[in-house]
Amino acid sequence: MSAQINIGVIGAGRIGKIHAENIAYFMPQARLAAIADLNMTPAIEEWAKKLGVPTVTKDPRQILADKTIQAVLICSSTDTHADFVVEAARAGKHVFCEKPVDLTVAKVKAALEAVKKANVKLQVGFNRRFDHNFRRVRDLVAAGEIGSPQIIKITSRDPAPPPPAYVAVSGGIFLDMTIHDFDMARFQAGSEVVEVYAAGAVLVDKAIGDAGDVDTAIITLKFANGALGVIDNSRKASYGYDQRVEVFGSKGSAAAENDSPSTVRLSNEAGVSGEKPLYFFLERYKEAFIAEMRAFLDAVAKDTPCLVTGEDGLQDLLVALAAKKSVAEKRSVKISEIG
Amino acid sequence: MSAQINIGVIGAGRIGKIHAENIAYFMPQARLAAIADLNMTPAIEEWAKKLGVPTVTKDPRQILADKTIQAVLICSSTDTHADFVVEAARAGKHVFCEKPVDLTVAKVKAALEAVKKANVKLQVGFNRRFDHNFRRVRDLVAAGEIGSPQIIKITSRDPAPPPPAYVAVSGGIFLDMTIHDFDMARFQAGSEVVEVYAAGAVLVDKAIGDAGDVDTAIITLKFANGALGVIDNSRKASYGYDQRVEVFGSKGSAAAENDSPSTVRLSNEAGVSGEKPLYFFLERYKEAFIAEMRAFLDAVAKDTPCLVTGEDGLQDLLVALAAKKSVAEKRSVKISEIG
Amino acid sequence: MSAQINIGVIGAGRIGKIHAENIAYFMPQARLAAIADLNMTPAIEEWAKKLGVPTVTKDPRQILADKTIQAVLICSSTDTHADFVVEAARAGKHVFCEKPVDLTVAKVKAALEAVKKANVKLQVGFNRRFDHNFRRVRDLVAAGEIGSPQIIKITSRDPAPPPPAYVAVSGGIFLDMTIHDFDMARFQAGSEVVEVYAAGAVLVDKAIGDAGDVDTAIITLKFANGALGVIDNSRKASYGYDQRVEVFGSKGSAAAENDSPSTVRLSNEAGVSGEKPLYFFLERYKEAFIAEMRAFLDAVAKDTPCLVTGEDGLQDLLVALAAKKSVAEKRSVKISEIG
Amino acid sequence: MSAQINIGVIGAGRIGKIHAENIAYFMPQARLAAIADLNMTPAIEEWAKKLGVPTVTKDPRQILADKTIQAVLICSSTDTHADFVVEAARAGKHVFCEKPVDLTVAKVKAALEAVKKANVKLQVGFNRRFDHNFRRVRDLVAAGEIGSPQIIKITSRDPAPPPPAYVAVSGGIFLDMTIHDFDMARFQAGSEVVEVYAAGAVLVDKAIGDAGDVDTAIITLKFANGALGVIDNSRKASYGYDQRVEVFGSKGSAAAENDSPSTVRLSNEAGVSGEKPLYFFLERYKEAFIAEMRAFLDAVAKDTPCLVTGEDGLQDLLVALAAKKSVAEKRSVKISEIG
Repeated sequence: MSAQINIGVIGAGRIGKIHAENIAYFMPQARLAAIADLNMTPAIEEWAKKLGVPTVTKDPRQILADKTIQAVLICSSTDTHADFVVEAARAGKHVFCEKPVDLTVAKVKAALEAVKKANVKLQVGFNRRFDHNFRRVRDLVAAGEIGSPQIIKITSRDPAPPPPAYVAVSGGIFLDMTIHDFDMARFQAGSEVVEVYAAGAVLVDKAIGDAGDVDTAIITLKFANGALGVIDNSRKASYGYDQRVEVFGSKGSAAAENDSPSTVRLSNEAGVSGEKPLYFFLERYKEAFIAEMRAFLDAVAKDTPCLVTGEDGLQDLLVALAAKKSVAEKRSVKISEIG
Repeated sequence: MSAQINIGVIGAGRIGKIHAENIAYFMPQARLAAIADLNMTPAIEEWAKKLGVPTVTKDPRQILADKTIQAVLICSSTDTHADFVVEAARAGKHVFCEKPVDLTVAKVKAALEAVKKANVKLQVGFNRRFDHNFRRVRDLVAAGEIGSPQIIKITSRDPAPPPPAYVAVSGGIFLDMTIHDFDMARFQAGSEVVEVYAAGAVLVDKAIGDAGDVDTAIITLKFANGALGVIDNSRKASYGYDQRVEVFGSKGSAAAENDSPSTVRLSNEAGVSGEKPLYFFLERYKEAFIAEMRAFLDAVAKDTPCLVTGEDGLQDLLVALAAKKSVAEKRSVKISEIG
Repeated sequence: MSAQINIGVIGAGRIGKIHAENIAYFMPQARLAAIADLNMTPAIEEWAKKLGVPTVTKDPRQILADKTIQAVLICSSTDTHADFVVEAARAGKHVFCEKPVDLTVAKVKAALEAVKKANVKLQVGFNRRFDHNFRRVRDLVAAGEIGSPQIIKITSRDPAPPPPAYVAVSGGIFLDMTIHDFDMARFQAGSEVVEVYAAGAVLVDKAIGDAGDVDTAIITLKFANGALGVIDNSRKASYGYDQRVEVFGSKGSAAAENDSPSTVRLSNEAGVSGEKPLYFFLERYKEAFIAEMRAFLDAVAKDTPCLVTGEDGLQDLLVALAAKKSVAEKRSVKISEIG
Repeated sequence: MSAQINIGVIGAGRIGKIHAENIAYFMPQARLAAIADLNMTPAIEEWAKKLGVPTVTKDPRQILADKTIQAVLICSSTDTHADFVVEAARAGKHVFCEKPVDLTVAKVKAALEAVKKANVKLQVGFNRRFDHNFRRVRDLVAAGEIGSPQIIKITSRDPAPPPPAYVAVSGGIFLDMTIHDFDMARFQAGSEVVEVYAAGAVLVDKAIGDAGDVDTAIITLKFANGALGVIDNSRKASYGYDQRVEVFGSKGSAAAENDSPSTVRLSNEAGVSGEKPLYFFLERYKEAFIAEMRAFLDAVAKDTPCLVTGEDGLQDLLVALAAKKSVAEKRSVKISEIG
């Protein structure tokens, strides 16, 4: 394929900018045709101009109406995702949608239905599947190096909690933060979650508890293939972003440690010390954001299945809702109880 | 104190021999006065002779009746532990008892009562508290280096499952294997477990399932101080004995990795490789067995509290029974429901 | 400074392309104004067009004559470097010159003289100073974290030897390969080398020996500040590119390990294994190439000293020539004997 | 062989005590028959009594005259080693002699001659060959895992310098400290050193320089098999005892890192930190001292060659003397020039 894929970006916030810049700098197979943001500002206009984007608009529908645009990236606020997916699909455009597609099962299902009907691609922004460490674990698992997976174990801790105001609209830790880990667990297990037990606590910030959420959690998963999973979450690790994955199986274990800014160790009278992990997701997943976009363009160009589908997004949501219910009802919850 | 402590050993199986040899070789402050084993053999007699033990007998009561003996080590089969504790206490002897004191709450309580009444020392054989790695974690936690503990995380996997016949009489994985991890979790948290949820699976050996037990488990703990805990167990890690502990808190995290036979790394076309962890508990906890016995002798000599008490043994048992109930009833179980 | 720096690139081989692409993608503060290559091809023309370079030519003088160009990157073959530096300086352009400036002291000195007279910037392409690991070591040393440097220790091994034909024209291992390590040693020591002893051997490829060179070497350095240095080189490490630096001093040691593609460790019956180091300099120093160019543009824009000067290039050359002489004459050689 | 080997120990200083206790505690195949020390004290007598040694004397000749003693350990001061080796050999006793046998080639050769004539065993106390890490490296090398050795690289740094008074009588750093590293290099290379170049500096303690010695050194070795070797020494590493070995060859590299008291890593706002290496040789080589003595007893019991021979001791001495000459004469020195 020699022609470039024309891309429209809806939403020019932090994540929209990352995707747009990655395409502009690293992906000659695509071309930024238009960028829309409901709150267009001179700063965004200038930024878009530097990237050489011909169309800059406040109106996303202008992108959806543009027949030359083949794919859209939905990077607007979460509550608008599902509707834009439906509209984009109806307009015959391939869709890359930031996670989550929606916080309700009904809207996600409607979006998936529209995608299916339009026969377009839909990739959901679970970027961690493209992280070099986690991909390596998955490759080892898929190659049979650890035998049958028995325990999928994820450590996922943020360097700092979000503001309580954000917590209130985020849907809570499981829908906002752990949903990445549920997706990772399913990705590594190669199997669907069938049951969830979650224990939560408020140990980081009382305001999070006041907002009806927890900030520390241990989640146990049971998979259809018999494997067990466990995730531990904290909204605040003083040493930075802690993102580790281990898959343990009948023949061995594959474990990914954190990345850090350098490999340097300082030895002195106090001991031997190294650097903290890379600070947060922008640093740790910098290359993963590029890789996920390349994968999306590949799927579009070659008409192959996306590596993270709308169905993945739906399953991750179901698990997150089950975890939420588990904390509320203090019991183990089956996925079949949800939705 | 210049005089040696006279020691009687009841049970000359594997663990009894370890303790006896450690005393003979490394602890000039004690003297092996007598060794008893219900199944005395010429091999045991010869071994005891080499250690210079003056009295070797089939009858444990001979030890209990010996006024010159100040302390006994109970290393016989589990079902005899509690009775010997009671008898030894009544005879006014300090007691080191291998874990578990008993598989029933009633007998453990009775043993503790006898110990209390006799005002003797009782140390239970949770040797892992004396492991150099785990002790270092605990020291960092106790020194406030990680702030308030929020997540206690334990990986505990054996290199090979026990024979199904053993599984049948062991009380099951939680009473036999995880009980060490419950003790470690309590030790590191500095707080009591109040609630347990356990998910179990049979993924290693179907015969274990047939014997009514599980061989793979994820256990979630809630502590009185608000912290959460999580343990993952497997009866078979192909790469050997996997014994790791992490305590995560408000100011940081202290994590112990496995020990291995050497630090050597081989780099070649295939990658960079090192050795597996030390094979099993005899290798990994070799020094810990020595340290726990030294601690017991210290407590006796200086009349100070034991570092692992009968109360610890009781609490560990309650948590194990709650975990067992949790798997059976597929729900979270409060410790207050047990016993 | 709001205006872009206009850049001309002389030489569109591998390294010229890397620098041009890095400027095009990552450095909005600069603009590729022209690219020249004596062996211009349609492929180079197409590549330059994609980068949006307005002028593409066979004639480097066209760049030197262009008054709008403020800085040139000299990425042509080594034997042309020094002459282009002189011409560019005379034309009043700032110069980034790939290493080495020349293989003879006389030509390097002449080039430096021209640069000085023209009062332009000259940065030499010792990119490793900008590597995240080695920079971190240097930062720790400069911050006094290790006290006074006493031993500077460098491991530098290539994954595969160059073809013997290349060896013949390269000036030999010390001028071609170790010169990077000499620069690193001087950079870390913060002091000049005063004496060199080199032991060489032909252990990798007999053809290298036939070409009059060695492929394995241990070089001992004495610095003006009293510190010692040691470098070990091999033209072929079966496990890939081995690039480590340690600075040991009165208060401690700072040591950089290799980078690898992932942090993943696989544990199984065979042991615990991880990935090899990043394959070669393109992978390992990818970010360092970007950082060195940013530093050059900064020095030009802000009129500050370059971080790797022409004087550095000269000193590195002197050390390399001393090492060559040391092997030939089987004795320690003082830098003052050279040039 | 069922009978115990009767052992006489000459010299009850620090190292003599270590060997005696190791035999008493861990080696049932041997029996401590006598201990002699020219400066016998009540403390030594009491210590010997506790170990159950029947004969305690000021006169080493009493041991040499005792027909029931089969082997002697020479742990007295260095200047007496060679004479005792000769006398013990003439008395028909197997000899374990602490390193070095002597500081002069002539006396070592005379001792070896006596040993040869008497046809007894002689093992020299180069304990590091029995260290678990270095032994593992050697095993990998011997198994061909790294192909042909090309570079043997040793880091050997002490935690603190000896008192200047000791330095004056020690023979200097190469004969006192580096001699262990020369032995390790020869052990790992499986080949003899043929040429040495040493660069020395006084960076730790001026008093050491005043005593005519250096405290920091880089030594380059050439082996008969073509391999190169490099050792770096410092009398003072602020972080403790730094003992690392790497063997690099045609197929890969085997590298031993330091041992430390625990594997625990503390992660907090300041970074990720672990413990320093084990403090000094008593801690690091604790097990190696036991292993070397077991090996000696094995060689005696089974009449097999010792793993560190008198010839090894001689070769190590020659290399050390060559290194000393190299620093003095500022040139590379061939081993054939010595002795």
